[in-house]
Amino acid sequence: MPSPSNTPRTQIHRKPQRAHHEAATIRAIIDEALVCQIAFNQGGSVHCLPMACWREGDFLYIHGANNSRLTQTLLEHECAVSITHLDGLVLARSAFHHSMNYRSVAIYGRFEAEDDPAAKAAAFRAFVEHVSPGRAAQVRPPSPAELAGTRLLRIALDEAVAKIRNWGAEDADEDMAIPVWAGVLPLALGAGPLQPEAGCADRQPPAAPAFIGG
Amino acid sequence: MPSPSNTPRTQIHRKPQRAHHEAATIRAIIDEALVCQIAFNQGGSVHCLPMACWREGDFLYIHGANNSRLTQTLLEHECAVSITHLDGLVLARSAFHHSMNYRSVAIYGRFEAEDDPAAKAAAFRAFVEHVSPGRAAQVRPPSPAELAGTRLLRIALDEAVAKIRNWGAEDADEDMAIPVWAGVLPLALGAGPLQPEAGCADRQPPAAPAFIGG
Repeated sequence: MPSPSNTPRTQIHRKPQRAHHEAATIRAIIDEALVCQIAFNQGGSVHCLPMACWREGDFLYIHGANNSRLTQTLLEHECAVSITHLDGLVLARSAFHHSMNYRSVAIYGRFEAEDDPAAKAAAFRAFVEHVSPGRAAQVRPPSPAELAGTRLLRIALDEAVAKIRNWGAEDADEDMAIPVWAGVLPLALGAGPLQPEAGCADRQPPAAPAFIGG
Repeated sequence: MPSPSNTPRTQIHRKPQRAHHEAATIRAIIDEALVCQIAFNQGGSVHCLPMACWREGDFLYIHGANNSRLTQTLLEHECAVSITHLDGLVLARSAFHHSMNYRSVAIYGRFEAEDDPAAKAAAFRAFVEHVSPGRAAQVRPPSPAELAGTRLLRIALDEAVAKIRNWGAEDADEDMAIPVWAGVLPLALGAGPLQPEAGCADRQPPAAPAFIGG
């Protein structure tokens, strides 16, 4: 895919050292996302909603019910999509220099519908694999009625930008002697003990996504 | 605080069994957030950006540089704020019934500035305590110049709604015999090994927020 274009909307004016426009960087951040946030206008008001998401090729995918007002709005209007991984708390010697480490992506554009049943089936299979690698072959695939009742939407990654902060505290020289612990408290999404349904405890446990900690 | 009003924007039409309007529920979800997503319109386009956040009383607080275009826009226009905790992957026997467990809050309204230096100092102290309990007394507090250079913004929780999904898979009866593991793979933000700066390894380690797993 071409490097996402550096449009006025993807120029980072504040702290531009955190901005990244390379496609590989943007893809890698998206590929660790299970949820995105979508901003859109509807009914004269701006909204922000979380949606499950996954990437295939040069598109971010979401899905919703066929008759949903939200998916119809997203097909008719531009939106902004935000993905954020909070990677750590940056604990400085001064309150002012506290910060957070993170990787985020902003995507601008309009969603389009993918209505071809075979393409939808492949995309939902990829979604199951994203959520739990190896699982798509084990579960019942969507029926024609389930596929028809679900809308598959995708947005191109043509206009996107990543922001990354991944370094330590930046205290001023005059604060370096303050005798408090300073550094980074890393944060990551991790998996807890599995909660099997009745009758499932002895079955092969599901895999967590590779980017989820143990 | 009064229970957030059930306005047209906070009515949940799809899956209303997931909606919660009680103030205590909304507050509890906000209190586990370190980052929120803010949707707003600027320059003829909708945007969605992550911001650090914390709650005091009936307000969600954010901060930014005094001369930032973003904070100015947020003071002049309505926005929507979204907070989402991804709590688990719901793994069903059919691809169609896969889901996610989550707790989310949507807040509608307009940010206002809190410019009183004493109120700002107290709010930033609460922010440091939110990020690392007990830390505010150990670090250098903001100087008058630092306080003056930072904008403190808050939005009332008057128009807000929570959505929660916190149960297992909902497979159809005819899928119950499929011999795949089904249940919930819990997810939570956890702390990794501390990364101290040079000279800090032997100091009292910082506390993580109580809602962060070990």
